[in-house]
Amino acid sequence: MCKGDKMLDDEKYMTLALKEAEKAYLMGEVPIGAVLVDNEDGTVVSRGHNLRETRQDATAHAEMEAIRAATAALQRWRLTGMTLYVTIEPCAMCAGALVNSRIDRLVYGSHESKFGAVESVFNVVSHRLLNHRIAVTAGVLEEECRRLMQDFFKMRRQQNRAKKKASFQEALPDSME
Amino acid sequence: MCKGDKMLDDEKYMTLALKEAEKAYLMGEVPIGAVLVDNEDGTVVSRGHNLRETRQDATAHAEMEAIRAATAALQRWRLTGMTLYVTIEPCAMCAGALVNSRIDRLVYGSHESKFGAVESVFNVVSHRLLNHRIAVTAGVLEEECRRLMQDFFKMRRQQNRAKKKASFQEALPDSME
Repeated sequence: MCKGDKMLDDEKYMTLALKEAEKAYLMGEVPIGAVLVDNEDGTVVSRGHNLRETRQDATAHAEMEAIRAATAALQRWRLTGMTLYVTIEPCAMCAGALVNSRIDRLVYGSHESKFGAVESVFNVVSHRLLNHRIAVTAGVLEEECRRLMQDFFKMRRQQNRAKKKASFQEALPDSME
Repeated sequence: MCKGDKMLDDEKYMTLALKEAEKAYLMGEVPIGAVLVDNEDGTVVSRGHNLRETRQDATAHAEMEAIRAATAALQRWRLTGMTLYVTIEPCAMCAGALVNSRIDRLVYGSHESKFGAVESVFNVVSHRLLNHRIAVTAGVLEEECRRLMQDFFKMRRQQNRAKKKASFQEALPDSME
Protein backbone atom coordinates (compact mmCIF):
# COMPACT_ATOMS: atom_id res chain seq x y z
CA MET A 1 0.00 0.00 0.00
CA CYS A 2 1.18 3.53 -0.65
CA LYS A 3 1.63 6.42 1.74
CA GLY A 4 -1.56 7.99 3.03
CA ASP A 5 -3.90 5.31 1.66
CA LYS A 6 -5.80 5.06 4.92
CA MET A 7 -6.63 8.77 4.84
CA LEU A 8 -8.54 8.60 1.56
CA ASP A 9 -12.26 7.92 1.48
CA ASP A 10 -12.56 6.17 -1.88
CA GLU A 11 -16.34 6.59 -2.20
CA LYS A 12 -16.11 10.32 -1.51
CA TYR A 13 -13.59 10.88 -4.30
CA MET A 14 -15.36 8.54 -6.72
CA THR A 15 -18.48 10.65 -6.20
CA LEU A 16 -16.45 13.65 -7.40
CA ALA A 17 -15.24 11.65 -10.41
CA LEU A 18 -18.89 10.78 -11.15
CA LYS A 19 -19.75 14.48 -11.08
CA GLU A 20 -17.07 14.99 -13.76
CA ALA A 21 -18.57 12.11 -15.78
CA GLU A 22 -21.98 13.80 -15.58
CA LYS A 23 -20.48 16.97 -17.08
CA ALA A 24 -19.28 14.88 -20.04
CA TYR A 25 -22.77 13.30 -20.35
CA LEU A 26 -24.43 16.70 -20.56
CA MET A 27 -22.01 17.67 -23.35
CA GLY A 28 -22.87 14.56 -25.37
CA GLU A 29 -19.49 12.98 -24.55
CA VAL A 30 -19.04 9.36 -23.37
CA PRO A 31 -19.50 9.95 -19.61
CA ILE A 32 -16.15 9.24 -17.96
CA GLY A 33 -14.75 11.44 -15.20
CA ALA A 34 -11.58 11.56 -13.09
CA VAL A 35 -10.07 13.34 -10.11
CA LEU A 36 -6.48 13.33 -8.92
CA VAL A 37 -5.96 13.41 -5.16
CA ASP A 38 -2.91 14.05 -2.96
CA ASN A 39 -2.51 11.01 -0.66
CA GLU A 40 -0.93 13.15 2.05
CA ASP A 41 -3.78 15.54 2.83
CA GLY A 42 -6.64 14.47 0.55
CA THR A 43 -6.51 17.64 -1.56
CA VAL A 44 -8.15 17.35 -4.98
CA VAL A 45 -5.27 18.43 -7.23
CA SER A 46 -7.14 18.30 -10.54
CA ARG A 47 -10.29 17.09 -12.29
CA GLY A 48 -11.06 15.99 -15.82
CA HIS A 49 -13.79 14.59 -18.02
CA ASN A 50 -13.87 13.12 -21.47
CA LEU A 51 -13.74 15.84 -24.16
CA ARG A 52 -12.90 13.85 -27.29
CA GLU A 53 -15.74 15.15 -29.45
CA THR A 54 -15.74 18.70 -28.09
CA ARG A 55 -12.01 19.11 -28.66
CA GLN A 56 -11.83 16.72 -31.64
CA ASP A 57 -8.83 15.15 -29.92
CA ALA A 58 -8.61 11.39 -29.32
CA THR A 59 -6.18 11.97 -26.45
CA ALA A 60 -8.64 14.14 -24.48
CA HIS A 61 -9.78 11.33 -22.14
CA ALA A 62 -10.76 12.14 -18.53
CA GLU A 63 -7.54 10.73 -17.05
CA MET A 64 -5.31 12.61 -19.50
CA GLU A 65 -7.14 15.85 -18.79
CA ALA A 66 -6.65 15.37 -15.04
CA ILE A 67 -2.96 14.46 -15.44
CA ARG A 68 -2.22 17.39 -17.73
CA ALA A 69 -4.11 19.83 -15.49
CA ALA A 70 -2.10 18.62 -12.47
CA THR A 71 1.29 18.87 -14.19
CA ALA A 72 0.39 22.35 -15.47
CA ALA A 73 -0.64 23.47 -11.96
CA LEU A 74 2.30 21.88 -10.12
CA GLN A 75 4.89 22.47 -12.87
CA ARG A 76 6.31 18.96 -12.49
CA TRP A 77 5.77 15.77 -14.45
CA ARG A 78 6.21 13.39 -11.49
CA LEU A 79 2.87 12.88 -9.74
CA THR A 80 4.18 10.56 -7.02
CA GLY A 81 2.16 10.49 -3.80
CA MET A 82 -1.12 10.80 -5.68
CA THR A 83 -4.19 8.67 -6.41
CA LEU A 84 -6.26 8.88 -9.58
CA TYR A 85 -9.97 8.15 -9.28
CA VAL A 86 -11.74 7.38 -12.54
CA THR A 87 -15.24 6.06 -13.17
CA ILE A 88 -14.26 3.48 -15.84
CA GLU A 89 -11.22 1.18 -16.21
CA PRO A 90 -8.58 3.17 -18.16
CA CYS A 91 -7.60 2.35 -21.77
CA ALA A 92 -3.96 1.60 -22.73
CA MET A 93 -3.20 5.26 -23.43
CA CYS A 94 -4.44 6.45 -20.04
CA ALA A 95 -2.98 3.50 -18.12
CA GLY A 96 0.36 4.21 -19.80
CA ALA A 97 0.11 7.90 -18.90
CA LEU A 98 -0.47 6.96 -15.23
CA VAL A 99 2.70 4.86 -15.26
CA ASN A 100 4.66 7.60 -17.08
CA SER A 101 3.49 10.12 -14.45
CA ARG A 102 4.58 7.82 -11.57
CA ILE A 103 1.16 7.97 -9.93
CA ASP A 104 1.02 5.76 -6.79
CA ARG A 105 -2.49 4.43 -6.87
CA LEU A 106 -5.44 4.00 -9.21
CA VAL A 107 -9.05 3.58 -8.09
CA TYR A 108 -11.70 2.91 -10.70
CA GLY A 109 -15.40 2.15 -10.73
CA SER A 110 -16.52 -0.19 -13.50
CA HIS A 111 -14.59 -2.61 -15.74
CA GLU A 112 -14.35 -1.99 -19.48
CA SER A 113 -14.19 -5.31 -21.29
CA LYS A 114 -13.48 -3.80 -24.75
CA PHE A 115 -10.45 -1.63 -24.06
CA GLY A 116 -9.63 -1.80 -20.33
CA ALA A 117 -5.86 -1.87 -19.83
CA VAL A 118 -5.67 -2.62 -16.10
CA GLU A 119 -7.14 -6.09 -16.05
CA SER A 120 -9.62 -6.60 -18.92
CA VAL A 121 -7.50 -6.58 -22.12
CA PHE A 122 -4.00 -5.66 -20.86
CA ASN A 123 -2.31 -5.07 -17.54
CA VAL A 124 -0.35 -1.92 -18.24
CA VAL A 125 -0.17 -0.49 -14.70
CA SER A 126 1.56 -3.24 -12.76
CA HIS A 127 3.53 -5.29 -15.28
CA ARG A 128 6.63 -6.92 -13.80
CA LEU A 129 8.86 -5.55 -16.57
CA LEU A 130 7.95 -1.88 -16.06
CA ASN A 131 10.00 0.49 -13.92
CA HIS A 132 6.93 1.77 -12.04
CA ARG A 133 3.94 -0.18 -10.77
CA ILE A 134 0.64 1.22 -9.53
CA ALA A 135 -1.53 -0.10 -6.68
CA VAL A 136 -5.09 -0.71 -7.93
CA THR A 137 -8.52 -0.76 -6.28
CA ALA A 138 -11.42 -1.64 -8.59
CA GLY A 139 -15.22 -1.63 -8.20
CA VAL A 140 -15.73 1.53 -6.10
CA LEU A 141 -19.31 2.78 -6.82
CA GLU A 142 -19.21 0.31 -9.70
CA GLU A 143 -22.97 0.21 -10.23
CA GLU A 144 -23.31 4.02 -10.46
CA CYS A 145 -20.36 4.32 -12.85
CA ARG A 146 -21.66 1.58 -15.12
CA ARG A 147 -25.25 2.83 -15.06
CA LEU A 148 -24.20 6.29 -16.28
CA MET A 149 -22.46 4.68 -19.28
CA GLN A 150 -25.44 2.40 -20.01
CA ASP A 151 -27.87 5.34 -19.83
CA PHE A 152 -25.68 7.33 -22.21
CA PHE A 153 -25.45 4.61 -24.85
CA LYS A 154 -29.19 3.83 -24.53
CA MET A 155 -29.97 7.53 -25.05
CA ARG A 156 -27.63 7.65 -28.06
CA ARG A 157 -29.22 4.56 -29.65
CA GLN A 158 -32.66 6.17 -29.25
CA GLN A 159 -31.42 9.40 -30.82
CA ASN A 160 -29.88 7.50 -33.73
CA ARG A 161 -33.10 5.54 -34.31
CA ALA A 162 -35.13 8.77 -34.27
CA LYS A 163 -32.68 10.40 -36.68
CA LYS A 164 -32.85 7.44 -39.09
CA LYS A 165 -36.65 7.44 -38.97
CA ALA A 166 -36.75 11.17 -39.69
CA SER A 167 -34.36 10.94 -42.64
CA PHE A 168 -36.31 7.92 -44.02
CA GLN A 169 -39.57 9.89 -43.91
CA GLU A 170 -37.85 12.87 -45.51
CA ALA A 171 -36.68 10.67 -48.39
CA LEU A 172 -40.21 9.32 -49.10
CA PRO A 173 -41.90 10.74 -52.21
CA ASP A 174 -44.87 13.04 -51.38
CA SER A 175 -47.43 10.49 -52.60
CA MET A 176 -46.28 7.91 -50.01
CA GLU A 177 -46.50 10.20 -46.98
CA MET B 1 -1.55 -3.37 -45.97
CA CYS B 2 -3.23 0.00 -45.82
CA LYS B 3 -4.08 2.38 -48.61
CA GLY B 4 -1.13 4.16 -50.20
CA ASP B 5 1.55 2.07 -48.50
CA LYS B 6 3.53 1.70 -51.68
CA MET B 7 3.76 5.44 -52.15
CA LEU B 8 5.60 6.08 -48.90
CA ASP B 9 9.37 6.02 -48.77
CA ASP B 10 9.90 4.81 -45.19
CA GLU B 11 13.57 5.84 -44.97
CA LYS B 12 12.80 9.37 -46.19
CA TYR B 13 10.18 9.92 -43.47
CA MET B 14 12.25 8.22 -40.78
CA THR B 15 15.03 10.69 -41.61
CA LEU B 16 12.57 13.49 -40.83
CA ALA B 17 11.64 11.78 -37.55
CA LEU B 18 15.37 11.57 -36.74
CA LYS B 19 15.66 15.32 -37.33
CA GLU B 20 12.91 15.79 -34.72
CA ALA B 21 14.81 13.48 -32.34
CA GLU B 22 17.92 15.61 -32.81
CA LYS B 23 15.96 18.71 -31.77
CA ALA B 24 15.06 16.88 -28.53
CA TYR B 25 18.73 15.89 -28.03
CA LEU B 26 19.86 19.51 -28.31
CA MET B 27 17.30 20.48 -25.66
CA GLY B 28 18.61 17.84 -23.24
CA GLU B 29 15.50 15.67 -23.79
CA VAL B 30 15.61 11.91 -24.44
CA PRO B 31 16.01 12.02 -28.26
CA ILE B 32 12.81 10.60 -29.75
CA GLY B 33 11.13 12.16 -32.78
CA ALA B 34 8.02 11.50 -34.85
CA VAL B 35 6.28 12.62 -38.04
CA LEU B 36 2.74 11.90 -39.18
CA VAL B 37 2.26 11.37 -42.92
CA ASP B 38 -0.83 11.24 -45.14
CA ASN B 39 -0.76 7.89 -46.99
CA GLU B 40 -2.61 9.35 -49.96
CA ASP B 41 -0.14 11.99 -51.10
CA GLY B 42 2.82 11.71 -48.71
CA THR B 43 2.21 15.10 -47.06
CA VAL B 44 3.83 15.53 -43.66
CA VAL B 45 0.80 16.47 -41.56
CA SER B 46 2.63 17.10 -38.27
CA ARG B 47 5.92 16.62 -36.41
CA GLY B 48 6.80 16.15 -32.77
CA HIS B 49 9.67 15.50 -30.42
CA ASN B 50 9.94 14.55 -26.78
CA LEU B 51 9.39 17.57 -24.51
CA ARG B 52 8.83 15.93 -21.13
CA GLU B 53 11.41 17.93 -19.20
CA THR B 54 10.89 21.22 -21.04
CA ARG B 55 7.13 21.15 -20.51
CA GLN B 56 7.28 19.18 -17.22
CA ASP B 57 4.57 16.95 -18.67
CA ALA B 58 4.92 13.16 -18.73
CA THR B 59 2.45 12.97 -21.62
CA ALA B 60 4.60 15.18 -23.90
CA HIS B 61 6.16 12.28 -25.84
CA ALA B 62 7.05 12.71 -29.53
CA GLU B 63 4.09 10.64 -30.77
CA MET B 64 1.58 12.50 -28.58
CA GLU B 65 2.93 15.84 -29.76
CA ALA B 66 2.54 14.77 -33.41
CA ILE B 67 -0.98 13.39 -32.84
CA ARG B 68 -2.16 16.47 -30.98
CA ALA B 69 -0.64 18.83 -33.56
CA ALA B 70 -2.41 16.92 -36.36
CA THR B 71 -5.82 16.91 -34.66
CA ALA B 72 -5.46 20.62 -33.89
CA ALA B 73 -4.58 21.39 -37.52
CA LEU B 74 -7.22 19.13 -39.09
CA GLN B 75 -9.91 19.71 -36.43
CA ARG B 76 -10.78 16.01 -36.29
CA TRP B 77 -9.79 13.22 -33.93
CA ARG B 78 -9.85 10.42 -36.51
CA LEU B 79 -6.47 10.16 -38.22
CA THR B 80 -7.38 7.32 -40.58
CA GLY B 81 -5.33 7.11 -43.76
CA MET B 82 -2.15 8.16 -41.96
CA THR B 83 1.19 6.64 -40.98
CA LEU B 84 3.17 7.60 -37.88
CA TYR B 85 6.97 7.41 -38.14
CA VAL B 86 8.79 7.36 -34.80
CA THR B 87 12.43 6.68 -34.03
CA ILE B 88 11.82 4.38 -31.01
CA GLU B 89 9.16 1.73 -30.30
CA PRO B 90 6.24 3.56 -28.62
CA CYS B 91 5.35 3.11 -24.93
CA ALA B 92 1.85 1.96 -23.83
CA MET B 93 0.54 5.54 -23.63
CA CYS B 94 1.62 6.40 -27.18
CA ALA B 95 0.65 3.03 -28.66
CA GLY B 96 -2.79 3.46 -27.04
CA ALA B 97 -3.07 6.99 -28.45
CA LEU B 98 -2.32 5.65 -31.96
CA VAL B 99 -5.15 3.11 -31.61
CA ASN B 100 -7.51 5.75 -30.18
CA SER B 101 -6.70 8.03 -33.14
CA ARG B 102 -7.41 5.22 -35.66
CA ILE B 103 -4.04 5.64 -37.35
CA ASP B 104 -3.53 3.07 -40.15
CA ARG B 105 0.14 2.30 -39.91
CA LEU B 106 3.10 2.66 -37.55
CA VAL B 107 6.75 2.63 -38.66
CA TYR B 108 9.45 2.71 -36.01
CA GLY B 109 13.21 2.54 -35.89
CA SER B 110 14.63 0.81 -32.85
CA HIS B 111 13.06 -1.53 -30.28
CA GLU B 112 12.70 -0.45 -26.67
CA SER B 113 13.00 -3.47 -24.40
CA LYS B 114 12.04 -1.61 -21.19
CA PHE B 115 8.73 -0.01 -22.13
CA GLY B 116 7.99 -0.84 -25.79
CA ALA B 117 4.27 -1.55 -26.24
CA VAL B 118 4.24 -2.83 -29.80
CA GLU B 119 6.22 -6.02 -29.39
CA SER B 120 8.71 -5.74 -26.51
CA VAL B 121 6.57 -5.59 -23.33
CA PHE B 122 2.99 -5.41 -24.67
CA ASN B 123 1.26 -5.55 -28.01
CA VAL B 124 -1.16 -2.66 -27.73
CA VAL B 125 -1.50 -1.77 -31.44
CA SER B 126 -2.77 -5.00 -32.97
CA HIS B 127 -4.44 -6.94 -30.17
CA ARG B 128 -7.25 -9.20 -31.36
CA LEU B 129 -9.70 -7.80 -28.80
CA LEU B 130 -9.32 -4.15 -29.81
CA ASN B 131 -11.70 -2.44 -32.26
CA HIS B 132 -8.83 -0.99 -34.31
CA ARG B 133 -5.55 -2.62 -35.33
CA ILE B 134 -2.50 -0.95 -36.80
CA ALA B 135 -0.12 -2.30 -39.46
CA VAL B 136 3.46 -2.20 -38.16
CA THR B 137 6.89 -1.95 -39.84
CA ALA B 138 9.86 -2.06 -37.44
CA GLY B 139 13.60 -1.54 -37.88
CA VAL B 140 13.67 1.34 -40.40
CA LEU B 141 17.00 3.21 -39.90
CA GLU B 142 17.26 1.16 -36.71
CA GLU B 143 20.98 1.72 -36.23
CA GLU B 144 20.76 5.53 -36.52
CA CYS B 145 17.76 5.71 -34.17
CA ARG B 146 19.43 3.51 -31.54
CA ARG B 147 22.81 5.28 -31.82
CA LEU B 148 21.23 8.67 -31.10
CA MET B 149 19.73 7.27 -27.88
CA GLN B 150 23.01 5.58 -26.87
CA ASP B 151 24.98 8.80 -27.49
CA PHE B 152 22.49 10.75 -25.39
CA PHE B 153 22.65 8.41 -22.38
CA LYS B 154 26.46 8.17 -22.64
CA MET B 155 26.70 11.98 -22.64
CA ARG B 156 24.34 12.15 -19.66
CA ARG B 157 26.35 9.59 -17.68
CA GLN B 158 29.53 11.61 -18.34
CA GLN B 159 27.82 14.81 -17.22
CA ASN B 160 26.56 13.12 -14.04
CA ARG B 161 30.03 11.76 -13.25
CA ALA B 162 31.57 15.20 -13.78
CA LYS B 163 28.91 16.78 -11.56
CA LYS B 164 29.51 14.22 -8.78
CA LYS B 165 33.27 14.76 -8.99
CA ALA B 166 32.85 18.54 -8.77
CA SER B 167 30.53 18.36 -5.77
CA PHE B 168 32.89 15.87 -4.03
CA GLN B 169 35.83 18.25 -4.51
CA GLU B 170 33.73 21.15 -3.28
CA ALA B 171 32.91 19.20 -0.11
CA LEU B 172 36.58 18.47 0.69
CA PRO B 173 38.12 20.51 3.52
CA ASP B 174 40.75 23.05 2.28
CA SER B 175 43.62 20.99 3.75
CA MET B 176 42.82 18.03 1.51
CA GLU B 177 42.70 19.92 -1.78
